[in-house]
Amino acid sequence: MLYEKLKQIKSLEKEVMEAAKERVDQLIKPQGSLGKLEEIAIKLSGITGESIPILDKHAIIVMCADHGVCDEGIASAPQVVTLLQTLNISKRITGVGALADPSKTKIYTVDIGVNAEIEDPAIISRKVMMGTGNISRGPAMTRIDAIKAIEIGIEMAELAIKEGAKVLGTGEMGIGNTTPSTAILSVLTGASPYEITGVGANYPVEKLNYKASVIERAIKINAPNANDPLDILSKIGGLDIAGMAGVMIGGAANRVPVVVDGFISTISALVACALDEGVKSYLFASHASHEKGAKMASKTLGLEPFLNLEMRLGEGSGAALAFNILEAACRMNSDMITFEESGIGVV
Amino acid sequence: MLYEKLKQIKSLEKEVMEAAKERVDQLIKPQGSLGKLEEIAIKLSGITGESIPILDKHAIIVMCADHGVCDEGIASAPQVVTLLQTLNISKRITGVGALADPSKTKIYTVDIGVNAEIEDPAIISRKVMMGTGNISRGPAMTRIDAIKAIEIGIEMAELAIKEGAKVLGTGEMGIGNTTPSTAILSVLTGASPYEITGVGANYPVEKLNYKASVIERAIKINAPNANDPLDILSKIGGLDIAGMAGVMIGGAANRVPVVVDGFISTISALVACALDEGVKSYLFASHASHEKGAKMASKTLGLEPFLNLEMRLGEGSGAALAFNILEAACRMNSDMITFEESGIGVV
Repeated sequence: MLYEKLKQIKSLEKEVMEAAKERVDQLIKPQGSLGKLEEIAIKLSGITGESIPILDKHAIIVMCADHGVCDEGIASAPQVVTLLQTLNISKRITGVGALADPSKTKIYTVDIGVNAEIEDPAIISRKVMMGTGNISRGPAMTRIDAIKAIEIGIEMAELAIKEGAKVLGTGEMGIGNTTPSTAILSVLTGASPYEITGVGANYPVEKLNYKASVIERAIKINAPNANDPLDILSKIGGLDIAGMAGVMIGGAANRVPVVVDGFISTISALVACALDEGVKSYLFASHASHEKGAKMASKTLGLEPFLNLEMRLGEGSGAALAFNILEAACRMNSDMITFEESGIGVV
Repeated sequence: MLYEKLKQIKSLEKEVMEAAKERVDQLIKPQGSLGKLEEIAIKLSGITGESIPILDKHAIIVMCADHGVCDEGIASAPQVVTLLQTLNISKRITGVGALADPSKTKIYTVDIGVNAEIEDPAIISRKVMMGTGNISRGPAMTRIDAIKAIEIGIEMAELAIKEGAKVLGTGEMGIGNTTPSTAILSVLTGASPYEITGVGANYPVEKLNYKASVIERAIKINAPNANDPLDILSKIGGLDIAGMAGVMIGGAANRVPVVVDGFISTISALVACALDEGVKSYLFASHASHEKGAKMASKTLGLEPFLNLEMRLGEGSGAALAFNILEAACRMNSDMITFEESGIGVV
């Protein structure tokens, strides 16, 4: 199913984009003066195939999973917080629920691998396993499970689209997940873990070298093939990371824009784009995460975030804020008139 | 009246801010992980005196005025565009109207000095004069008129607050207004006009030296006193710039936050803060304008913008987008629960 979806990903609709650009250039403002909003509007036209898309319904898909590498003491919070926050996210009482506009944004909380039995109708149950293996001692999961996790992401993207979402955002909850994310970034870029390992959820700065050493060991022991994204994902990745990559592939395959949240989401985007570079045209970066490796991850992906709020929470919280910007870019095109319509053109 | 309002400006309510910080630190997220949203929420508590302010109604006050210096050919658009866009802004068919959330944001379009008779009930008529004098040949206006323009801004702020606005944004429309703005920035910082003059509304790059020479001449002929903001405003300023400074003073005097738009608004903020440094605590920067002098203006003001969209339209368009961020910061505090409330604190 994954390969079938990857094959569905087409390039953006150039003709619709050209028509959109023509209109944007004729709106009553100095040409180019709305900067990236103009680029966003044109890209959204290319994605959706509509000259004036309306993004009035949003979905954030939050992938929740545990990470066996927590056994190494690389996180400041106990692993059970993944479970507790998964339950809280579905009640909209955490960061993403508060920041998302309650009138427009639906949150899908997905148990893709939390290390606990969850029986709560507010949580979508798609558990692949009870958390990944400890990557510093062996692989996170099998290649088959990595594919399964990606396919769950695709399925969730398609569910949200079916339920009306015009734009998707990715989010995650998984204590310890900056560790596999940093490991993936190291393998994809060649950067040393000691240069790019950050504090995640307030891990003590003085122990960062230890955290980096765990990441170094994970890479050494598993020796993932840097040119094989599924090998990377299964050996040193995570179920949340794989699931979000699937959401991006599902959005792209269905011509629906996907907003990438912070550091972990950007790593998922790197994996998704490594599987098919066509995914990138369907993605928007949201905020510049304050996590140490985030800048390098964004640069490697090649999408510049437009919010600079020094956030590093995850959950999709930055994506929630970015939806407003995308929606405003659409309103620019739907609500502003052109010089010709205004009569200024003939002054 | 201006001096009376300046006297009303008090410092932020420290105790409410401390209580707000305490709650923000206890919300279920790693401390500090919502970055500037946390600072914004705490500052908003200090401004409003409420532990959890709700910013669900917004106003943008757009000051529209003409600039006599247009006679020198420093703008690419004809002066009549000020009139035409003033009419269009009130119809919400320009940038600010499109970007502002129609369900939450009211736009006040104020004729504070458009060079034309306007009889349109949608425009608030507070014309001080038919545009300023040509600053490259003499003063923009008298000191009395500068005070009058600031007081109109205060009056408009208080009108919007009376009509329910919980947060104000500043906007302007005035063909040629990057010229007086750059002149003010030059006087306040000592920077040469040749270093900081930008293209405004797509003025040709190859003519920027000429535009800078007009600004240099305006400063030389008028010799404003760099330590007297009213002298600067009356000699080389503009009615739109003065009016927006008044909106900021009016917000501060009434403990209502004010979002500063782009370059011209930031210059108004510098003037308002020069009149009373207490104003600054009530201001939020919105976006990093792409106009050349904007970075220096923001740095001089000391407020870092959080949106990076390469916009340079003005009208209050960036403020419109920033309202969502401020509102989200408030929802963080109202909708998220604390560790204690969640039970995680006792794990």
